[in-house]
Formats: sequence, C-alpha cells, structure tokens
Amino acid sequence: MDGLKVVLTGPRNPLNIGAAARAMSNFGFCDLCLVNPYEVAFREARSAVGAEAILEQAREYPTLADALSGCSLVVGTTAGEHRELRQPYYRLELGARLIRRHQGAAALLFGSEKYGLSNDDLSHCDFLMGIPSRPEHRSLNLGQAVAVCLYELIRHPRAARVMPAPRKSATAEQTEVLRERLRSVLEISGYYSHSATAGSERRLRALIKRLNLNHQDAVIWLGILRQILWRLKA
Amino acid sequence: MDGLKVVLTGPRNPLNIGAAARAMSNFGFCDLCLVNPYEVAFREARSAVGAEAILEQAREYPTLADALSGCSLVVGTTAGEHRELRQPYYRLELGARLIRRHQGAAALLFGSEKYGLSNDDLSHCDFLMGIPSRPEHRSLNLGQAVAVCLYELIRHPRAARVMPAPRKSATAEQTEVLRERLRSVLEISGYYSHSATAGSERRLRALIKRLNLNHQDAVIWLGILRQILWRLKA
Repeated sequence: MDGLKVVLTGPRNPLNIGAAARAMSNFGFCDLCLVNPYEVAFREARSAVGAEAILEQAREYPTLADALSGCSLVVGTTAGEHRELRQPYYRLELGARLIRRHQGAAALLFGSEKYGLSNDDLSHCDFLMGIPSRPEHRSLNLGQAVAVCLYELIRHPRAARVMPAPRKSATAEQTEVLRERLRSVLEISGYYSHSATAGSERRLRALIKRLNLNHQDAVIWLGILRQILWRLKA
Repeated sequence: MDGLKVVLTGPRNPLNIGAAARAMSNFGFCDLCLVNPYEVAFREARSAVGAEAILEQAREYPTLADALSGCSLVVGTTAGEHRELRQPYYRLELGARLIRRHQGAAALLFGSEKYGLSNDDLSHCDFLMGIPSRPEHRSLNLGQAVAVCLYELIRHPRAARVMPAPRKSATAEQTEVLRERLRSVLEISGYYSHSATAGSERRLRALIKRLNLNHQDAVIWLGILRQILWRLKA
C-alpha cells in the first residue's frame, strides 16, 4: 500500500492530525497530505507520539486538486448522512477491496472534524466509502476513522480462517496416571465413601479429559497430585 | 454483541476514555467498565461528544476480578511485545471471530495507555488478541485500538464480497445517437479534415463505449451535444 495518500482536508484539531499520523505509522502508510489545515493545529500535531517521521514528511497543499496530483483513484470517506450522493457509495469492507485492487496511485480523503467532506471535495471522488456504524451515531472521530479504514486495508482476510496452531495435548498415558493419582487422593481424603468402581473410574477419566490439558500442564498437575498424595499418606 | 463488556484497566487520559466510549456508541456496544481509573480523567471524559449515554452507564470497579463477574470469556488486547505470553495469542481477525462465536457474556480488556495490561491482568484472560501492525510501531493509541477491535467485531465478512449494485448503463441506441451527434460536431467544428469514414465511425463508437456511461449521464451528454450542434449551425 505504498501508493496510498492519506489526505486530510481542513483538519482543525492537532490531536486528530497526530492520531491520523500515528495510525498511519502503526499500519505502514507514510504519505500524509494536508489540504488547507489550521496552521496552529498542524504545528502542534508535529509533537505526536511516535509518528514524527510521518508528520515531518507530511505535505501541505492550498487546494484538494493540488493534493490529488498523480492519483488515478480518489476515494472519499463519509458517514453518508444528510446529502444526496452523486458517486457510488460502498461499505468500507468493499471499498477497501477496490482500493487494494487498484493499479496505480490512490488517495483516501477525510473531511474536517465538523463538516466532513464538502460537496466540492466529493466531486473529486471516484467513489465514496462509509464505515458501518449505528444509524443513531454514524459519525466517527477523525483519528478513529483513519485507524479503522487503514486497518481494513491491511487486514488479512485469511487470518480469520486460520485456526489456532495445534497445541501439544496431554497424552493418553498422562491422563491415565493422572486418573490413578486423583483416584488415590479421592479415596484417601474420604471423597469416596466406597472404593472405586469401574463406573467411577470411567467418570473420573471423562472428567480429566474434559479439562483438555496440554502436555505441559499435565506435567504440572501430575506433580501437584503426587505432592498431595505424599502429604495425605504422611 | 450485546453481551460484550469493554473493560479499561487503569486508564489515565480522559480523551481516551471518551474516545473508547464514542467508538462503542458508533459500533453499537453499550457496556463500559473501568477498573481503577484515574478519577479526574473519568470525570472529564463524561463530556465526550456523542457518547454521554455510555459514559453515564459506565461502571467503576476496584479490581479486575470484580469487573469480570459473570463473564465466561475474557480476552486481553496486547501488542505482544516485551513479554513471554502464557496464553494463546491470536491476530485480531481470528480473535474477533472466536469472540463472535462464544455463547455467553464476554469481556474485552484494554490496558492503561502507558503500560498496557499487567501480568496480573493477563492471567485473567482466556486468550490474547493483537491488532496487526508494523513491528517498528506496534502499539496503538488506546482510543484507536478500541475502535479497530470493535469494528472488526461488527464488520460483515460478506460485505466485501458483494459487488456494487448493477447500475443502469447507457443503451446501444443512446450510444449510436451520441456517436452521430459527436460526428456532426467534429465535422462542423473542423476537427475532421475529411468527412467521416467507416473507420472513423468505428473509432468514435469505441471511444464513446469506453466512457462507460450510465443511462442518466448519456441523457446529459446527448443534451450537451445537441446544444453545441445548434450553436455550431447557427
């Protein structure tokens, strides 16, 4: 995603500029453009934690057209409220996929905190993209919107399908020794009012199986039971 | 996802508490718990834009164990640096999937801005989850981390696969009338030094086809060309 410009138009709050830069740094994007930012905000933002490199390289433009120079795909972000949209509008999941597939430089636009993208800004866009959110509270904070959009761009669809790495489970031998030690403990401690039956042995084995122990934890439990047994017999 | 508690342990910055509440409001989560928050920060956060309801209902607990009461799944978030983890550690894409599949109340834990989750906090967790990020800058801002995790929980895997709704394209008849009008404009305006040939007609048709006009825009262009023709002939 080296080719992606993140463009903030008219940002007012230094914390938001800093937060946008930090999310870019977290997710591996480096090209930040500011269109007509509030000067004081931009200056203050430069001290944002951990994103100095991105803020130092950030470029400032008087107009959006200047910032978009060289881009062959322009995508606007909007909550999609209160206006008739003239561009195609996609949910983030789909919009991000279209951006990833684009060959060439692309720009992702975020409007000002208060007003979002203007109608003039929107007319530069090939399509618009919205973060799915509650109808009663559509509009995200600017820094959080940048983070969520960039995350969707770098998330790995297959990472959700990979199941956890297989762990080394307790062996059947460990389970049997565990069952024997636990039975002895139960007998000696008086938990069993009678001596163990085939049925109680089976229930004990199933009880241990359901613990779903891994190999290492089985070793720890074997040690614990040995110690308890030793003490009970003392 | 009504059953999910968002638990912040030891948060220090009112802006982050407010940002967490706002992301919860955006993505439809309502149960915010604060463990041992910095009191001043909690008080100040209550004025966060648009998330008053969540902050008013937020509950405060002296210990993490108190906050986790009733939860049958506890998931910690961590950048996974600097420590040996004793719990399974999954990327967000997978971890969120496991949370969605869980039957019963679940808690999602976020540590303090400076130190993250303590080893004691981690020992309460069934598994840990990390947001994929650049190794050189792993740690996200707290408010942004909450937003990204909640977004992953509510994102719709199939939304990325749905392609844009089919649009109503320009008809072949419209394309032909467009071509005829454009040819007349080119002849009268002197763009063509000779009269149109079968080859130039073909190229003109292909040129128009590549515009990939929708039905409505074709009507607009037909009107524009009619007006230009009228003026050229005047």
